[in-house]
Amino acid sequence: MSVHNIEDLIIKAKILQEALPYIRYFHGKTFVIKYGGSAMKDEHLRESFAKDVVLLKYVGINVIVVHGGGPQINEMLSKLGIKQKFVGGIRKTDEETMHIVEMVLSGDINKDIVALINKHSGENIYAVGLSGRDGRLIRARKMKEDFLKEIGIEIEEDIGYVGEVVSVNVDLLNSITEKNYIPVIAPVGVGEKGEAYNINADLVASEIAISMNAEKLIFLTDTEGVKDENGDVISSITERDTQLLIKKGIVKGGMIPKVKFALKAVNNGVKKVHIIDGRVEHSLLLEIFTREGIGTEVVSN
Amino acid sequence: MSVHNIEDLIIKAKILQEALPYIRYFHGKTFVIKYGGSAMKDEHLRESFAKDVVLLKYVGINVIVVHGGGPQINEMLSKLGIKQKFVGGIRKTDEETMHIVEMVLSGDINKDIVALINKHSGENIYAVGLSGRDGRLIRARKMKEDFLKEIGIEIEEDIGYVGEVVSVNVDLLNSITEKNYIPVIAPVGVGEKGEAYNINADLVASEIAISMNAEKLIFLTDTEGVKDENGDVISSITERDTQLLIKKGIVKGGMIPKVKFALKAVNNGVKKVHIIDGRVEHSLLLEIFTREGIGTEVVSN
Amino acid sequence: MSVHNIEDLIIKAKILQEALPYIRYFHGKTFVIKYGGSAMKDEHLRESFAKDVVLLKYVGINVIVVHGGGPQINEMLSKLGIKQKFVGGIRKTDEETMHIVEMVLSGDINKDIVALINKHSGENIYAVGLSGRDGRLIRARKMKEDFLKEIGIEIEEDIGYVGEVVSVNVDLLNSITEKNYIPVIAPVGVGEKGEAYNINADLVASEIAISMNAEKLIFLTDTEGVKDENGDVISSITERDTQLLIKKGIVKGGMIPKVKFALKAVNNGVKKVHIIDGRVEHSLLLEIFTREGIGTEVVSN
Amino acid sequence: MSVHNIEDLIIKAKILQEALPYIRYFHGKTFVIKYGGSAMKDEHLRESFAKDVVLLKYVGINVIVVHGGGPQINEMLSKLGIKQKFVGGIRKTDEETMHIVEMVLSGDINKDIVALINKHSGENIYAVGLSGRDGRLIRARKMKEDFLKEIGIEIEEDIGYVGEVVSVNVDLLNSITEKNYIPVIAPVGVGEKGEAYNINADLVASEIAISMNAEKLIFLTDTEGVKDENGDVISSITERDTQLLIKKGIVKGGMIPKVKFALKAVNNGVKKVHIIDGRVEHSLLLEIFTREGIGTEVVSN
Amino acid sequence: MSVHNIEDLIIKAKILQEALPYIRYFHGKTFVIKYGGSAMKDEHLRESFAKDVVLLKYVGINVIVVHGGGPQINEMLSKLGIKQKFVGGIRKTDEETMHIVEMVLSGDINKDIVALINKHSGENIYAVGLSGRDGRLIRARKMKEDFLKEIGIEIEEDIGYVGEVVSVNVDLLNSITEKNYIPVIAPVGVGEKGEAYNINADLVASEIAISMNAEKLIFLTDTEGVKDENGDVISSITERDTQLLIKKGIVKGGMIPKVKFALKAVNNGVKKVHIIDGRVEHSLLLEIFTREGIGTEVVSN
Amino acid sequence: MSVHNIEDLIIKAKILQEALPYIRYFHGKTFVIKYGGSAMKDEHLRESFAKDVVLLKYVGINVIVVHGGGPQINEMLSKLGIKQKFVGGIRKTDEETMHIVEMVLSGDINKDIVALINKHSGENIYAVGLSGRDGRLIRARKMKEDFLKEIGIEIEEDIGYVGEVVSVNVDLLNSITEKNYIPVIAPVGVGEKGEAYNINADLVASEIAISMNAEKLIFLTDTEGVKDENGDVISSITERDTQLLIKKGIVKGGMIPKVKFALKAVNNGVKKVHIIDGRVEHSLLLEIFTREGIGTEVVSN
Repeated sequence: MSVHNIEDLIIKAKILQEALPYIRYFHGKTFVIKYGGSAMKDEHLRESFAKDVVLLKYVGINVIVVHGGGPQINEMLSKLGIKQKFVGGIRKTDEETMHIVEMVLSGDINKDIVALINKHSGENIYAVGLSGRDGRLIRARKMKEDFLKEIGIEIEEDIGYVGEVVSVNVDLLNSITEKNYIPVIAPVGVGEKGEAYNINADLVASEIAISMNAEKLIFLTDTEGVKDENGDVISSITERDTQLLIKKGIVKGGMIPKVKFALKAVNNGVKKVHIIDGRVEHSLLLEIFTREGIGTEVVSN
Repeated sequence: MSVHNIEDLIIKAKILQEALPYIRYFHGKTFVIKYGGSAMKDEHLRESFAKDVVLLKYVGINVIVVHGGGPQINEMLSKLGIKQKFVGGIRKTDEETMHIVEMVLSGDINKDIVALINKHSGENIYAVGLSGRDGRLIRARKMKEDFLKEIGIEIEEDIGYVGEVVSVNVDLLNSITEKNYIPVIAPVGVGEKGEAYNINADLVASEIAISMNAEKLIFLTDTEGVKDENGDVISSITERDTQLLIKKGIVKGGMIPKVKFALKAVNNGVKKVHIIDGRVEHSLLLEIFTREGIGTEVVSN
Repeated sequence: MSVHNIEDLIIKAKILQEALPYIRYFHGKTFVIKYGGSAMKDEHLRESFAKDVVLLKYVGINVIVVHGGGPQINEMLSKLGIKQKFVGGIRKTDEETMHIVEMVLSGDINKDIVALINKHSGENIYAVGLSGRDGRLIRARKMKEDFLKEIGIEIEEDIGYVGEVVSVNVDLLNSITEKNYIPVIAPVGVGEKGEAYNINADLVASEIAISMNAEKLIFLTDTEGVKDENGDVISSITERDTQLLIKKGIVKGGMIPKVKFALKAVNNGVKKVHIIDGRVEHSLLLEIFTREGIGTEVVSN
Repeated sequence: MSVHNIEDLIIKAKILQEALPYIRYFHGKTFVIKYGGSAMKDEHLRESFAKDVVLLKYVGINVIVVHGGGPQINEMLSKLGIKQKFVGGIRKTDEETMHIVEMVLSGDINKDIVALINKHSGENIYAVGLSGRDGRLIRARKMKEDFLKEIGIEIEEDIGYVGEVVSVNVDLLNSITEKNYIPVIAPVGVGEKGEAYNINADLVASEIAISMNAEKLIFLTDTEGVKDENGDVISSITERDTQLLIKKGIVKGGMIPKVKFALKAVNNGVKKVHIIDGRVEHSLLLEIFTREGIGTEVVSN
Repeated sequence: MSVHNIEDLIIKAKILQEALPYIRYFHGKTFVIKYGGSAMKDEHLRESFAKDVVLLKYVGINVIVVHGGGPQINEMLSKLGIKQKFVGGIRKTDEETMHIVEMVLSGDINKDIVALINKHSGENIYAVGLSGRDGRLIRARKMKEDFLKEIGIEIEEDIGYVGEVVSVNVDLLNSITEKNYIPVIAPVGVGEKGEAYNINADLVASEIAISMNAEKLIFLTDTEGVKDENGDVISSITERDTQLLIKKGIVKGGMIPKVKFALKAVNNGVKKVHIIDGRVEHSLLLEIFTREGIGTEVVSN
Repeated sequence: MSVHNIEDLIIKAKILQEALPYIRYFHGKTFVIKYGGSAMKDEHLRESFAKDVVLLKYVGINVIVVHGGGPQINEMLSKLGIKQKFVGGIRKTDEETMHIVEMVLSGDINKDIVALINKHSGENIYAVGLSGRDGRLIRARKMKEDFLKEIGIEIEEDIGYVGEVVSVNVDLLNSITEKNYIPVIAPVGVGEKGEAYNINADLVASEIAISMNAEKLIFLTDTEGVKDENGDVISSITERDTQLLIKKGIVKGGMIPKVKFALKAVNNGVKKVHIIDGRVEHSLLLEIFTREGIGTEVVSN
């Protein structure tokens, strides 16, 4: 090993050391990560994400991944010639559609992410994929109109098997995280009769973060964060700010429920909620270097 | 409650009591059940199967379910217009096909069985679906030609992602069965690079039974058992019998690997292996009443 | 196995399945059973009782048996030529009598029941006999006059070592039931100085059910239940009903304290209390088929 | 507190300290004590025995008590007018006799000893009485002729329910001693069909000492130890010495089996076996002061 | 063994038995012992102390030793030519002095006591030395003026690294005492920046007794106890008595803080606090013989 | 956070990710680190060392630190005017010297390192200092002449309390490392009579690495590694190489025992042994980046 190499290594070691205060702080705490968008499509970003998840686990953080999967569902429905309809941005989910939704989420995307993470984990850490139907992980019911209004959606027709979360089987998650497994969760809920529900992945992530008393809830998105009227990223946003921005039409579409679910998490014991840019390589690991986090932090008031 | 009712109940209680010697004997032991065929399609048989699995669990038997899914895969591939090819009875599995195979097995059939069982289980027992990629449950490699020959298949072209089992993550299964969960396993394996393999579900069931040191391995089939040249069910069959029947062409097709995997299990510590008729209601529960079991028992020699 | 047999087995399996909802519900809960009367004398009923206890244990119910033993005590006292005297239905228990009472209860009846149950249990479940003096299981004191009055007894002379329950050593019972042992308890209490007390077995059963927070307390008696003025069994009886029936002289004698202790249990957290007919074969197991139970249920009001 | 008192206390403290090396050595080890004879009858010796057992437990020794009860059995049989017959020193035990034997041992003597010990134990240590039928603690079978010959007894008629030990349920004893309970064991065994056997208490003590891998097995007797032809106590005796003394008729009667069982224990892993004088107050505690023990030590060769 | 010896042993056994009620009572409870003065210097007293500590541990008492070390510190400082200054009886502790104080306490005296105790303990009990810096056992801060006034000390200059206790790492102490280790603690605290503080050993003992919810706190001193104006030892002293005696100048010097710390312990849950004469051999063990203890007991009011 | 910052953070994250394969590999394994030389003196290197130890612990490596302390001992002995004598490079250790050696090692250096590490650890990780006398951690005996010869030292006079390791109390170390504590060990051993021994810290590190079945044993030295005749660092050295280099006088002085102890470790199950340059900042952490390690690796043959 040449002298040059050692100097190089020392610089790297110093950078590792910069992470120590954060590792120390986050050790033993829970991070819930909503995984989606480009970070799930781009091969390079996928690898970067998987490695980050594994590294967070190795430094003692209990990582829980919740994923979405809209584009893959669309694609499969198209291939199968099933007509898709969106009502107020929400997929109208009849029984046939629900069948495909679940299959794609739990059988394709979920296992793909599990394999991706396992590729980078060692002999003592593994990802395990779960749908909300496994062990009745996510009990759900048909989403109520009030709930829809609350997240800014007005509908005039029945949207079928679109669900909201009733409760989370915390025991199952604990027994998995205690054993050095990383749960990877498909946003499918289970109703009283065992029927499946299609649930917004942001909502699932938020409810799991609340149930697990998480330290951080991180939404990986295809935007730099919540932006103000000038298009600048807002580093910290309160409930009142949000209401104003929605009123002004600056926060709109899918960002409305995301921000609402983020606020719900913050108001129910989750320490920090961040909406960050998943298109940035290692965006997840950046959390290790920044106690305040990156992108937009959603705060209580 | 009328006198009549009590007499009725007493008869029922006596029948319950007939199960006691078997419950006593099987308490704390492991049953691996290969679930497939009509028992998976017929609504009435499905309910009967699910209740049986739950009851076995409640009387202290560690039940592990492994399922197949050929017909559903065929159907989905057809719908998607993907050409299917079988070589020596084995599905030629290119990457595109593997993708659909996994999706249907892990995302559709698996979750469906999980929900089916959970419908009948209580607040303390749950089914949890796993694919062989979850927690690297089933490490696999491309099936070798020797192996194919061994199970009576000669192929002349590459069959793609068809796998054999390298090892089973027993720790993961134990941590799940200890906690009153019933694992439901999709026959997908994971290769060294994380790639998925399509594995014969009978083989997966056999290998899991061996790894878990099971008391019983039960194949639910659409036949009454292995039959002799007169079409009569053979109650007990040895390795030598098998070779003879294969030679004579009486045991053939998919029954050849099934019998071979059954023999492997018997020769590697599994106490009892049965090939039974899944078209018979509660066929699984019949095991509780019969220490010798029903259908054809495969024995060592 | 002939086809006929299989059909037969299926009917039996269906009957087993009828028990599933009850097994599911009672799994992990505690049943305290007061065992006495004909069910303890008739050889056929004894076997039926023992098998039922074992089966309840195998399906996950924590069974605790409390037994009486009046007739055997009378017989032994007679043989030994010791004069017996009953005051208000209660055995006057001087030191010599207490000595024989304990010997018969703990050394004869108790061990007999233990052996009876163990005859039907397997390698992993055992009955263990305990007297209230073992591990100070039942701390007792001389029964007070108020208590006697409360259960409808007026006495004019000292009745000696007749006790009431002060406390139950729950730790000892838990450490035994956790380990797959079935405790069989003789109704003998221990005083502050280590002296033995003769305690009404119904009272012991009631106090243990309360201390163990039992799901069910079942009195096996030689009657079909509590009867009304027409001699018909009352399926459900309240505190007020009881007072009326006692006043009218319809509920009388030993049934008065039994009903009082049943009410105490119901009023102190025991979910269900039943007075049932122990002369009916498998009467205990009938509980498995009936969430409401059989005979007379004693309810709070 | 006067100065005089303190000097007194210091002397006592010094004496306590003399016990330290022995406490240190015996901490965590198992002592099996065969309790019988005068130590069980004389009120003063009984108290001394109970206190000693409790103190041994408090200094960390796992004490297991096995008791006999011949005189009490004789007395009860006499009172009941049941004819007693001894063949070669062994009680001929027909079914009626066995019934009384068990009742007296398990229901009278056993509970009496339990209460005696509990009188001196605190809130964290308790005696629990067990018969060999509880939890199938002592599996037994009819004593074979060979066995009888081996212990110097020739019989010409059937002696009924006299048993030898087949196996000891070590799990049950461990689960009790781990929990700060002191097991007190009645020498009754259980046969394959649940039937009771009358077993020599010395034999039970020896077999339990072997099964529990005991440090010490102590027989409390009504003699100062094994004596030589001059009537002097022999401090240490080997197998060969024993044979010679038996041949010469110096060791005879009930001392023959006692010495044989002692030798069996020594030859099967029990570290020290002592035959001591139970008529000496605190004879048991003297073990604490003497690593070699008192009375006669039985050694391997 | 001669008859004479046995009689001798019996007397000793009786004396052991006199300790039983106390052992029973103190079993599982915690004693914190402040060790210092002659008991730490005189070879004979040292041995007596070590044996007593070990014996207390063997009879199930969790012993925690806190030691001082003034004379040894003085000696080392003298040898090194470092000027010593006392302000109001408190050592002015600059950085250089603190360095020596810690070294002598943690490296010399502490290890010396550990070795002393281990000399008398067996294979299953060990002393482990800890300073307040190990595992941040004793978090400390600079002693405040108010605190000094409270214990009767007025100072006019800075006394340097003299600390008061902020908190005790109870987890560390519990994990050590659970494992049969005896913690021996040097009275050094650790500040926020890791700096060492010299803390009064009486204060450390008192704070540890409070944190560990101790049954007894015992100060071994070079006096017979707290004395009244006639020089007679007061067997029991209250807060009000103390104030009066301090006012009168009868309690003075180092006895003032000792009594104050004793009172603090009593007022914060420690059951009994004693100031006893460490010059008396086995003074510690005398506690076993006396529920009221010896010397002066400090009581709440 | 500016864009610039994010790019910066990404580079840092990438560097963190480079450590992942090593973290994955070393997770759950034990590193024994011999700490000494400049790394213990230079303030900057001290901080770098402490942070590295803490970071290794946080990523799941069980770190055990063994320290030396020659220079500080020399200094203290000088200050105290105690004559020092070295025989064959070994300190002649009479009783007075041993006293100071222990005091400096256990009371000064040890606590200093403990405080240094604790300064950088969080709320869940702590360093705990231990001497070989605590809990009889390092049982020792006087070093034998053979041993001295073996490590190349010939002496003609008695060297006093210089010890070799007899055994290590692995239970104590395990109970500490399991609880998230980092043991910091002073190289003092305890003899049969409790006397202290001065032991070469390299020897202590080697013996602890062997006993704990360590993955790595790392000697932090004031040299770049073992050098060849040209003064170039040898990256890997075998037993034979060593013998040759010693013969040629190239490896000499204190490097001889160090290499010998390293070889002993390698030959007794320690996976990797490295002699590295402690003067290089973060030299310890460099291990995280290099599976082969830095400096000179000592290999078996």
